[in-house]
Amino acid sequence: MGEAAKGKVGGLAGVVAGKSAICTVGTGHGLNYRGYDIYDLARECEFEEVAYLLLRDELPNKSQLAEFKQELKAARALPKELKEALKLLPKNAHPMDIMRTGCSVLGCLEQENLDVLKMQFPDQQKIAVRLLGIFPSILTFWHHYHHSGKEISTDSTQDSIGGYFLELLHQTPPKDLWVKAMHVSLILYAEHEFNASTFTSRVITATMSDVYSAITGAIGALRGPLHGGANEAAMDLIAEFKTPQEAIDGIHKKLSNKDKIMGFGHRVYVTADPRNVVIKEWSRKLSDDVKDTKGLYPISEAIEKVMWDEKKLFPNLDFYSASAYHFMGIPTSYFTPIFIFSRTAGWIAHVFEQRANNKLIRPSSEYIGPENREFVPMDKR
Amino acid sequence: MGEAAKGKVGGLAGVVAGKSAICTVGTGHGLNYRGYDIYDLARECEFEEVAYLLLRDELPNKSQLAEFKQELKAARALPKELKEALKLLPKNAHPMDIMRTGCSVLGCLEQENLDVLKMQFPDQQKIAVRLLGIFPSILTFWHHYHHSGKEISTDSTQDSIGGYFLELLHQTPPKDLWVKAMHVSLILYAEHEFNASTFTSRVITATMSDVYSAITGAIGALRGPLHGGANEAAMDLIAEFKTPQEAIDGIHKKLSNKDKIMGFGHRVYVTADPRNVVIKEWSRKLSDDVKDTKGLYPISEAIEKVMWDEKKLFPNLDFYSASAYHFMGIPTSYFTPIFIFSRTAGWIAHVFEQRANNKLIRPSSEYIGPENREFVPMDKR
Repeated sequence: MGEAAKGKVGGLAGVVAGKSAICTVGTGHGLNYRGYDIYDLARECEFEEVAYLLLRDELPNKSQLAEFKQELKAARALPKELKEALKLLPKNAHPMDIMRTGCSVLGCLEQENLDVLKMQFPDQQKIAVRLLGIFPSILTFWHHYHHSGKEISTDSTQDSIGGYFLELLHQTPPKDLWVKAMHVSLILYAEHEFNASTFTSRVITATMSDVYSAITGAIGALRGPLHGGANEAAMDLIAEFKTPQEAIDGIHKKLSNKDKIMGFGHRVYVTADPRNVVIKEWSRKLSDDVKDTKGLYPISEAIEKVMWDEKKLFPNLDFYSASAYHFMGIPTSYFTPIFIFSRTAGWIAHVFEQRANNKLIRPSSEYIGPENREFVPMDKR
Repeated sequence: MGEAAKGKVGGLAGVVAGKSAICTVGTGHGLNYRGYDIYDLARECEFEEVAYLLLRDELPNKSQLAEFKQELKAARALPKELKEALKLLPKNAHPMDIMRTGCSVLGCLEQENLDVLKMQFPDQQKIAVRLLGIFPSILTFWHHYHHSGKEISTDSTQDSIGGYFLELLHQTPPKDLWVKAMHVSLILYAEHEFNASTFTSRVITATMSDVYSAITGAIGALRGPLHGGANEAAMDLIAEFKTPQEAIDGIHKKLSNKDKIMGFGHRVYVTADPRNVVIKEWSRKLSDDVKDTKGLYPISEAIEKVMWDEKKLFPNLDFYSASAYHFMGIPTSYFTPIFIFSRTAGWIAHVFEQRANNKLIRPSSEYIGPENREFVPMDKR
């Protein structure tokens, strides 16, 4: 460990902050969830199977999955007070702030029942389902109320979280291809070890706070462009260019100006993000499906090539997620909220794990400020 | 560092997670804020001077303090939408959930303007003042609306945060002694290095998220009984007993049952919490002032003695804060929200510091789960 362990590199890079049985980064094809290869999961599973795996340790069989999906459907309804609160939040608010607030309000309305002295948390699985079910409702209810003045219904026959979100957003049943793309995207985003938002949820949980506090905090961390916010920043970048050649020239210029370019590189991965090949292929499929007249897919590829040739930086999951979402007609400012729909499964799996073997997470700092100073009374200042 | 640095002790105990110039724990009398001894600050200062010191690096002179207090007074008003949101949140909600939600709602209404690419945060000092000013308004508006159906005014001539809170809570101007006690208490609670809630705010900030997200997350962490929630748990404990002898017998019994006892010991302090002698003396003064007919002060002392004799555990700041607040007629469930009124100054000082030299905070975990598992298709499960 060396430098990293001593905190000299900073940001706790390489420092082991705890044990976890949920996810490995760097083994197999580069990412496993509870021992299963991400490529198998992304190719074979629905997102709900993966959420079940994360929250309940094993892949579900057919009847377990059917029951889980039924629970998720039943968890979609918005309480009256939450609807009223969403109506109060302005149209120009940041959608991640809406999600953070929606989660916090729900925590007031449906408080977690937990016994800290006995370390019993009887509600936690139910709340996991509730949040996975209700998050798409929160975003789309707020969206439609402020964009069309319409209070949409959360009734839907869609039996997947991704399909439900697309139906509520577009107010029409989504194509099968799009539902499948959402499954893949949500699976890829579901879990990633001690990333910043997950670590936030563990630090909060370790004080023996409630699940809602942990997830509200995690949403706040995910919001930042150095974390979940990167998929929106990537879309903004791609949309700057009209042709691949413009993109090549533009990225060269940005690099020589030392501008930050989002969607490339990763704290943990060194040469490639294993999730990229999967989401890139789906971005291509969706681009074909919608007849990508703006050429966003070839523009994305052009950016990827310049970043590799010039900086040896590879696209991370956020980069091709951006165009994939765009092809499904999703507004850019909702890209990071989609990340919430998925990562909530990982976050809450970590909440459970932290609770099962809890210790307060409380590091120290290296003091670099002034040493003992003599107090100066007010009239001497 | 040894074991701690390798993460084997767990909870990042003893691990340096970054540099900071804000606070030292363990030097001087045991706690310094920006190099000034906590005893000097608690004896000589108003809380607003200390908040200024934390947020703006130096103690204010007379005119700077007057201006700062003016800014804080101007920051008390509740936006109409926030009032409506507070009215929607139920009477039986946890007050910390109200505070967390209030902060999050304000972040929707008064979004932070920040430029991540240029690393510019022009709003951050203004938001610090806004949150310090408005937090007592959020709690007391919600309280009175749900307990008496009254929408209270946030107008007040009180020029301190503690005095303002007491006046709004009791709807009558507080005694000078109580205002002074609040100054001391808020000063003692204002900052404590990389504690769990402050560390939460830094992890969130490090993704380049906004101040409201950082503070919303910090409130969620503070809520837990292993952190800020301890002052409420301490009061519940003290209130169990009617006499010192009952307390002595009761604590012996709890210890032999291995029950958790809140308000004692500390992750960082080993033999005593330096803040304890200060708050204990104020608890005694307030006990005299209100003619402590229930004998809560001698009961607290009896608990303290048993905990030391039997376990060599000392009271931390939370323990005597509990009775001190109780003597001022503050409901137990508002003790941890008061911690917010104070620690917001420390939290935001850390947000500023993190931003000034930012690096994503992203540790690793030691994997203890199943190794590569072969994928099992649905029909084989």
